[in-house]
Amino acid sequence: MTDTLTTVLDGRWAELKTRLRERMAATKPPDTIGLDMESHRAQVLQQLHELAEAGHSKVSDDVGGSVISFQMLGYGDLSLMVKAGVQWGLFGGAVQMLGTERHEGYLRDIVSLDLPGCFAMTETGHGSDVQHLRTTATYDDGHFIVDTPDLGARKDYIGNAARDGRMAVVFAQLITGGREYGVHAFMVPIRDEQGRPMPGVRIEDCGPKAGLNGVDNGRLWFDHVRIPQEALLNRYGDVTQDGQYTSPIESDSRRFFTMLGTLVRGRISVAGGAGSATQRALTIAVRHAETRRQFRRPGGDEEVLLLDYLAHQRKLLPALATTYALHFAQEELVAMLHEVQSARVPDERAQRQLESRAAGIKALATWHATSTIQAAREACGGAGYLAENLLPALKADTDVFTTFEGDNTVLLQLVAKGLLTDYRDNFADLSPLATARLVAEQVMAAVLERLPARTLAESSDLRDRAWHRQLFADREEHVLAGLARRLRAAAGGDPFDAFNDAQDHVLRAGRVHIDRLVLDAFVNAIEQCADEATQALLNQVCDLYVLSNVEADRAWFLEHGRLSPARAKKVVAEVNVLCKQLRPHATTLVDAFAIPEQYLP
Amino acid sequence: MTDTLTTVLDGRWAELKTRLRERMAATKPPDTIGLDMESHRAQVLQQLHELAEAGHSKVSDDVGGSVISFQMLGYGDLSLMVKAGVQWGLFGGAVQMLGTERHEGYLRDIVSLDLPGCFAMTETGHGSDVQHLRTTATYDDGHFIVDTPDLGARKDYIGNAARDGRMAVVFAQLITGGREYGVHAFMVPIRDEQGRPMPGVRIEDCGPKAGLNGVDNGRLWFDHVRIPQEALLNRYGDVTQDGQYTSPIESDSRRFFTMLGTLVRGRISVAGGAGSATQRALTIAVRHAETRRQFRRPGGDEEVLLLDYLAHQRKLLPALATTYALHFAQEELVAMLHEVQSARVPDERAQRQLESRAAGIKALATWHATSTIQAAREACGGAGYLAENLLPALKADTDVFTTFEGDNTVLLQLVAKGLLTDYRDNFADLSPLATARLVAEQVMAAVLERLPARTLAESSDLRDRAWHRQLFADREEHVLAGLARRLRAAAGGDPFDAFNDAQDHVLRAGRVHIDRLVLDAFVNAIEQCADEATQALLNQVCDLYVLSNVEADRAWFLEHGRLSPARAKKVVAEVNVLCKQLRPHATTLVDAFAIPEQYLP
Repeated sequence: MTDTLTTVLDGRWAELKTRLRERMAATKPPDTIGLDMESHRAQVLQQLHELAEAGHSKVSDDVGGSVISFQMLGYGDLSLMVKAGVQWGLFGGAVQMLGTERHEGYLRDIVSLDLPGCFAMTETGHGSDVQHLRTTATYDDGHFIVDTPDLGARKDYIGNAARDGRMAVVFAQLITGGREYGVHAFMVPIRDEQGRPMPGVRIEDCGPKAGLNGVDNGRLWFDHVRIPQEALLNRYGDVTQDGQYTSPIESDSRRFFTMLGTLVRGRISVAGGAGSATQRALTIAVRHAETRRQFRRPGGDEEVLLLDYLAHQRKLLPALATTYALHFAQEELVAMLHEVQSARVPDERAQRQLESRAAGIKALATWHATSTIQAAREACGGAGYLAENLLPALKADTDVFTTFEGDNTVLLQLVAKGLLTDYRDNFADLSPLATARLVAEQVMAAVLERLPARTLAESSDLRDRAWHRQLFADREEHVLAGLARRLRAAAGGDPFDAFNDAQDHVLRAGRVHIDRLVLDAFVNAIEQCADEATQALLNQVCDLYVLSNVEADRAWFLEHGRLSPARAKKVVAEVNVLCKQLRPHATTLVDAFAIPEQYLP
Repeated sequence: MTDTLTTVLDGRWAELKTRLRERMAATKPPDTIGLDMESHRAQVLQQLHELAEAGHSKVSDDVGGSVISFQMLGYGDLSLMVKAGVQWGLFGGAVQMLGTERHEGYLRDIVSLDLPGCFAMTETGHGSDVQHLRTTATYDDGHFIVDTPDLGARKDYIGNAARDGRMAVVFAQLITGGREYGVHAFMVPIRDEQGRPMPGVRIEDCGPKAGLNGVDNGRLWFDHVRIPQEALLNRYGDVTQDGQYTSPIESDSRRFFTMLGTLVRGRISVAGGAGSATQRALTIAVRHAETRRQFRRPGGDEEVLLLDYLAHQRKLLPALATTYALHFAQEELVAMLHEVQSARVPDERAQRQLESRAAGIKALATWHATSTIQAAREACGGAGYLAENLLPALKADTDVFTTFEGDNTVLLQLVAKGLLTDYRDNFADLSPLATARLVAEQVMAAVLERLPARTLAESSDLRDRAWHRQLFADREEHVLAGLARRLRAAAGGDPFDAFNDAQDHVLRAGRVHIDRLVLDAFVNAIEQCADEATQALLNQVCDLYVLSNVEADRAWFLEHGRLSPARAKKVVAEVNVLCKQLRPHATTLVDAFAIPEQYLP
């Protein structure tokens, strides 16, 4: 059963995963416990060189495969994963996606790690709102002058900057002929061969962090640093010798978001890394709960295994089910990325969908990682607090995932804004008849809310997948429609207040949309599974995913007449039943992640 | 306003708090960032000596004051707080509460830190179920032989053991004349003057932990270690020269829980320390949100402060309101401890109430600390991940609070079991008429659940405190009555299954009981406040505490006919309104914690 489950989990890139697992199983990774920051950084750099030599980072046409390789690093020291992500994903990715032929020479050196580099986007004053970065790159007679005008414009939290980076892709406002054309990316040398800062470049170490201390984050200041004109990564915008700005995209804003969009791989990779870390934490916690006993059974001498307690099952098993769900959603997302970025003709609509889905799944997967790893730590008690049992590093290292590569709150808003735009577009496109039908449906929904809820599908089986899908889809539609109405009603007033007053509603719209996509992905994966017993088990896991999601959100379903009080109580009871039924399979379910034993305590 | 708020917060021990704050403000605490484990341990030991010299630990009749002093340490390096707690609270506390005149000599040396020691209760195999510890202390001709029979019986996670401790209070099964009399405490030397382990004692370092690395946790094994008969802390049980066991309490079990009960101060102290850490994290996050701007206002150049976003207010302000609520509950708890432990005649009922309340508030306060410090970290983005901004240490150090000094899940069960016992007792004591009335009330409640909920107090103001109190009290009663019925109904079957199947219900009963006590404490504190404007502000904070609690739990209120869907939605909207109204007061509310500036970034 474990093997067939692993096959389902491995999916499209199964062969690659098997190969990587074999490589991981062949050697024990070096220990990170008790390392001081400098030793940890040195160790991670050494490991990064070994990865480069093993061909981990070679540029290939297998876009999806490269994300999967990255994800697999998530079973080990996450500092290595992040350092690899900075070097090859962000730094290399920017050169690849934003540069042109003239930058191809760099790529070879980036891949071989002969040119370690940084992705210098975030500034002290601007992290989420990168469109308004304040570093400038002013064209001057065949050169650009890169400058940090004030403290808020220094580049901050930049990986690879404090110790190892020699070059940085610097994002700055391009200015030529006295006009600003928005943010562009420039190749700026920051250290010489001897590792000394280049003239005009000031570098500061961000110092110790909560986790990821094997990554050397730093700050960069540029004091009128002169770089050649060719240093501009000029795929989406260029400057002629005489200072004329040219671009295939006219709008500064659209150009900027197109450039950002090409970098979506980073976000998808973080979501994948969060998934690997979550799987590892659950494997540790389930194994502990299957060996650790506490308190005797009434009237007996035998002590009870932790995993036999309902409260313990509730700590771990719904999180495990959600981890499965998010895993399948991540697999779909990687496949989508693969299709979009491998397509001969760019599909703008598909690209937009990909960006939205990547933003949403990144947000949900990283929040899920934070809460699940926390639950795993608590479920292991004092043992979970000891570094030797790996959970402390997992917690500390993954913590920043919720706010880097896009702050989760901002990302969910992006998702919702995209949905609102689509909603408006669809509404505008509708024929009068269709519009009337849509309005009628909304009125109907409002009426339903006022009816006793038991009239609504109260009789169907709590494990009926069709009902689950209807429940999720209906929630998504209703939340979005309500939000659109609410924003329209507030349209007369201050635009900031109108949106801000509904921000909790906005975030919910993003979240429930992604929840629906996650469920769809789970259902698709189950359908692909040929083995009947495995399918049956996966169906139970999916039931637990759905019902624990509904349980957590049942106030909404009750408020909107989608569940009656009696049925809502049954949902809670059914989660308990499912925990009991899945409890004997917990070990199988975590073993199916097939994490090499060297990566477990 | 800030000062009058501080006065309300400071309450009964205001004078002591002011004195301690002045002392704290006089010097800058040494840095802990980037310290290796050994240097951190050395630094904390040095600070502990300074505290001893400053008279921090002197035994006084002011029981409450000693907890308050401990709480104030929670604003600084939590390793120091925990190390002080081990030395004076647990080790010293055990000698004081479980020993007799013949152990008084030890106390002087413990206070002066001439005798650093350990509280060796937890074993690898038994943490929550300490009644079944397996270390043995067998009486043999004027001596006890202390022994670790197997790996599971080694003492584990013991603070002060790995490096500094010279003596340990060892909890072991007392055996004499071939019979076991349950767990007792024994003074066992573990290191000689030169710091070498005593013969027969093996000591191992637990190594690096997620946090609190200034505390030297270790493991202890005893190989038939012979200690004098007087080493038994003999207040609740003794052995005569000829090996006869004597005790003022006949039942082994009751004696054990009486002994444990005297140690309640530790749990109360941890709850207080968690509160201090939470206040510190919120102060940091609110200050950040009041200076950090991101994204421009539509149609303007001005960038918006983070705290002006509803989503950001929702991350911090309900948590801030709950921090206020828990603070007042903690103050009441400390006062209760003071009365119980200062009483000339022990009051068993009051002692039981104190233990229950301490268990519940410890659980809620430490979970609240974990989630709030996490939210504060996320609210500070990348800055929150840097060690220099203090949140990483706050997160890592407080993490273990939810599982040490009693695992929170076990503690909430203790609370619920106490309530069930009281419930049964009350029921048994009732006259036939009263019983009938009680049954009628239950029937009535069941009927109400089936009625459209809007009949229930739907018209009252959402900020009506009387309604809040009724809501909390009614929830408590209803959950408990339902649990009692459910357990009675399952009474025929397997007793483990009956209780275990209802474990989520059990935990909820404990939680909502404590919620009600917390609200009562908040209301009492507001009533004490003489200043009208301050009182008005506190009332709004209390409203936010209540309504965010109701919002999070509104599924239950909906399921049980306590809120109609329409009113539940209004609760959500009112939380938004309260966030907006309290937003201008956020700085005042955190400044009122009056944390010395040296302890902030």
